[in-house]
Amino acid sequence: MKILLVGATGTIGTAVAQALEARHEVLRASHSRSPLAVDLADPESIRRLYSQVGRVDAVVSVAGQAAFRPLLALTDADFALSLANKLMGQVNLVRLGADAVADGGSFTLTGGILSRQPMAGAAAISMVNAGLEGFARGAALELPRGIRINAISPGWVRETLVAMKMDPAPGTPAAVVARSYVEAVEGRMTGQVFDALQPAG
Amino acid sequence: MKILLVGATGTIGTAVAQALEARHEVLRASHSRSPLAVDLADPESIRRLYSQVGRVDAVVSVAGQAAFRPLLALTDADFALSLANKLMGQVNLVRLGADAVADGGSFTLTGGILSRQPMAGAAAISMVNAGLEGFARGAALELPRGIRINAISPGWVRETLVAMKMDPAPGTPAAVVARSYVEAVEGRMTGQVFDALQPAG
Repeated sequence: MKILLVGATGTIGTAVAQALEARHEVLRASHSRSPLAVDLADPESIRRLYSQVGRVDAVVSVAGQAAFRPLLALTDADFALSLANKLMGQVNLVRLGADAVADGGSFTLTGGILSRQPMAGAAAISMVNAGLEGFARGAALELPRGIRINAISPGWVRETLVAMKMDPAPGTPAAVVARSYVEAVEGRMTGQVFDALQPAG
Repeated sequence: MKILLVGATGTIGTAVAQALEARHEVLRASHSRSPLAVDLADPESIRRLYSQVGRVDAVVSVAGQAAFRPLLALTDADFALSLANKLMGQVNLVRLGADAVADGGSFTLTGGILSRQPMAGAAAISMVNAGLEGFARGAALELPRGIRINAISPGWVRETLVAMKMDPAPGTPAAVVARSYVEAVEGRMTGQVFDALQPAG
């Protein structure tokens, strides 16, 4: 398959690229450090990206910023960034990319476990993750030509916890999280929200 | 209790007003047909509303528009309206109203079952309902002074189905849905998403 990967340079994105390129052609895009550049918050930038890549079999997004800040310190700009970037950026990848995806292809987007397991400082992230996951469930009923859509809902990633000098024990290695993306791309499911959790053992 | 009810003239809002005013003082607000006027999409309008009502014990929102339209026919304006109105309108009721709510008071917001049970034409509504419910779960961890927040997630309302000339059988009467709002206001729970479903029998 020819797969457009948006957010290819992040912790999860790097692992997803490695996992997918064993069997597929991966077109790497990100904000600034990939062969293809895209600003998720800018629909024109997304349109340019699709015009560059032509027809693809799958679009995988592991991208999108959202603001982490105490509830009553979140600014209008924090909410606007979170909505425009992680939520509408990924929604627009679907809206503007539906024609670019081959019959029976797929979109795989990224939410996150904060959608259902909240923590202090993450109200805006919980909002956009939950919204993204709700959108994926709804859009699955309407995408044309057998195109599938799923959302991966990662928990804490081990490498991220290490980088933040936090206890890595509750984290799932990025390579394990990446398997959920591969499963979503290569499988037949649609409208699903996958918890990308550490397997037993 | 002194309760600010936003969306007091809608099908559910009318039933919630009736249910609450048996035991409480209800201050009715809506876009245009209530003693208090508010445009949820306009933060300045929300600020004016709070300056008019002063201290309240609870804020109940049964308000917010979102666009119902086939996925690939949803416009940028449809998404912007849905985000600004049903999602950020209710989020802003919390952000701008936290100081107006008394110690131990509450916010009760409205999502909807489309957050988890999608239907064709409702991708934008699924997105904002899920986002609102995610926000409520997150915000519950951080509201000061014992203030609670919950979201009610109504399914189809019987009166709405009748008005749309659809089969009313799967609908829950508005008066039954209203009981969930009363329970959220009078109870002690926080961070919960209530399904407002028809009771058995």
